[in-house]
Amino acid sequence: MKKQIFKLEATASTTSARAGTISTDHGDVQTPFFMPVGTYGAVKTFSSEEIKLLPSKILLSNTYHLYLRPGTEILEAAGGLHKFMNWDGAILTDSGGFQIFSLEGFRKISEDGVTFRSHLDGSKHHFTPEKIVDIQRSIGSDFMMMLDVCPPGDADRQTWIDALETTTRWAKRGMEHYRNTDPIYGHHQVLLPIVQGGTDKELRRRSASELCELDADAYAIGGLAVGEPKPEMLATVEVMNDELPKDKPRYLMGVGTPADLVRNVARGVDMFDCVMPTRNARNSQIFTFEGKMNIRNAQYRNDFSLIDETSTSPYSIKYTKAYLHHLFRTQEVLGLRIASQQNLHFYIVLMKKMREEIMNDTFEKWANGFLLKYEGEPL
Amino acid sequence: MKKQIFKLEATASTTSARAGTISTDHGDVQTPFFMPVGTYGAVKTFSSEEIKLLPSKILLSNTYHLYLRPGTEILEAAGGLHKFMNWDGAILTDSGGFQIFSLEGFRKISEDGVTFRSHLDGSKHHFTPEKIVDIQRSIGSDFMMMLDVCPPGDADRQTWIDALETTTRWAKRGMEHYRNTDPIYGHHQVLLPIVQGGTDKELRRRSASELCELDADAYAIGGLAVGEPKPEMLATVEVMNDELPKDKPRYLMGVGTPADLVRNVARGVDMFDCVMPTRNARNSQIFTFEGKMNIRNAQYRNDFSLIDETSTSPYSIKYTKAYLHHLFRTQEVLGLRIASQQNLHFYIVLMKKMREEIMNDTFEKWANGFLLKYEGEPL
Repeated sequence: MKKQIFKLEATASTTSARAGTISTDHGDVQTPFFMPVGTYGAVKTFSSEEIKLLPSKILLSNTYHLYLRPGTEILEAAGGLHKFMNWDGAILTDSGGFQIFSLEGFRKISEDGVTFRSHLDGSKHHFTPEKIVDIQRSIGSDFMMMLDVCPPGDADRQTWIDALETTTRWAKRGMEHYRNTDPIYGHHQVLLPIVQGGTDKELRRRSASELCELDADAYAIGGLAVGEPKPEMLATVEVMNDELPKDKPRYLMGVGTPADLVRNVARGVDMFDCVMPTRNARNSQIFTFEGKMNIRNAQYRNDFSLIDETSTSPYSIKYTKAYLHHLFRTQEVLGLRIASQQNLHFYIVLMKKMREEIMNDTFEKWANGFLLKYEGEPL
Repeated sequence: MKKQIFKLEATASTTSARAGTISTDHGDVQTPFFMPVGTYGAVKTFSSEEIKLLPSKILLSNTYHLYLRPGTEILEAAGGLHKFMNWDGAILTDSGGFQIFSLEGFRKISEDGVTFRSHLDGSKHHFTPEKIVDIQRSIGSDFMMMLDVCPPGDADRQTWIDALETTTRWAKRGMEHYRNTDPIYGHHQVLLPIVQGGTDKELRRRSASELCELDADAYAIGGLAVGEPKPEMLATVEVMNDELPKDKPRYLMGVGTPADLVRNVARGVDMFDCVMPTRNARNSQIFTFEGKMNIRNAQYRNDFSLIDETSTSPYSIKYTKAYLHHLFRTQEVLGLRIASQQNLHFYIVLMKKMREEIMNDTFEKWANGFLLKYEGEPL
């Protein structure tokens, strides 16, 4: 089952930014890339075809949520999530560890796994490193995440140590179970360990080193974007860049703002996901290369310019800011759709732009220009 | 400004069903047709382009709602509703009389017009027959509706008499104002009087006769589908069929179920609108030629057949009932979109089918077959 999934195609000369291609049985995906989030097997407001047209060749869904609804029985009867949601691109499923540890309510960690209550109906469930692999076998995701322990960004050092140690032991069990089981639907599935260790450099090095012994095909950086100061996040990703193998993809989980993407691509990250483009769209925030706007603001009431003249998003070059403002005021679903389309399209175009700049070895100059304009601070 | 807008192309030999073409400056529309409802200048969940692809060449919006939001100032600055919502097909705007009389809250009719409070913020407004024309000039709709008095279906005869008499006087004023004013955006606008009279045949004949003196280009049948028994509605439409000029389009306002459309086409109606396809979609009811289904029902949880195998709706032939069930359970916007698309597409295909059957003079046989299957009762 083992095969090389990543081809590194370029590394920037003045930063650690990389460009490459990840191969899956559901198509190749060029890095660096951003994954639209479809928690329950649907990216908010989008059809599968519209995700493809963004264009995106990969999306993220959530093991914990899909386990609760529709459940593995339905997913297996459907022939897996790809068929269920009519999506022939690649899928990465987050394990749900983050959700279990961040959602309010009962949860109990033991050496065996984690017991928790559903946020939907309070029913009790138990996840083990092995069961999380089994569920993702039922889902059929191209990239499966291991069960990890994800403490908050302001946890103490001992909590970080305990989390990373448990995460390593679970990763060994998860990897063994993964290697002893086969995909249900015939296509290859990759299992990613998740590096923990908070923002402590020594702990991060230790976690990475222990997980690298598993010789996984790709690695995830977890436990960041959980409340820690941003400079500490960036410093931690720099350590990861040194510790993780150069010939394997790195996935920074749950990050982030447009500027975060640029700063972390510069630090050697290849894969990203975040709910921000769709969640902020619901709160009427629109991302463009000219900056952000809250389309509900009164200034847009009679602004008959296009939503984003520089965009190639099909809606943003057809509808005006005044119309989108009106759609938000009248709570029309079309408003959500246009905003979500614009934001996800912006994120994806931003990643594509970074790839081009890396391939031309002009990334650092471009990134500083973008960041100065966007946030007033360079890399 | 006066011009012939309707060409009658076929009349069924055994029913009063008709087929024709209505010409507007935003394209020709073949009758009989159904208008998707976009109350606030957006058909719920749809982009303008998707309305065109349904396919529909006309949509309905609401004068009362648009007057409140975004308001005529914004609509004029945008260059009219067509430009505002990026729609180059035809638009009919309901006057809002029905909304003013059916919404809860303060309203007061005088000879001059009607004073009411906004359902949004309680602010006081006054509509006159002239002002309703002016607002629709600002909107730029191809078909404008007159201000009428629309009593409930169980009102007493004197209420019906008062309503029709006021409606006639207002119609005269509205038509005079219409003929003394010009379109703002250059394209032709038609003004439709609305026949009232409840379900009293004599009153209906009187209302139709008085309004026909105005020599309008098209006529609307109002005051039905407001709580009266269905046989009375159908009997009333039969009277209208006798009274209204054969060479002008007839629009039955706010009707109705799929069976209602068939029964009223058989009685000589050309134009329909109703919120049912999109409203019922929000309540998880799906229309198909095989009948209705509530997609939230447990039986669809593991039904992996397509939503509607007989459909040409792009979503309904790509997604399964089980997936749509899941989308409704998880409250995904995509579920609303798929259901709304299926239902509106079904309504539009149903109208198109009726037109074909009328053109072939096979309408009655087809209609009885459809109705027996759909409701167990013929025409």
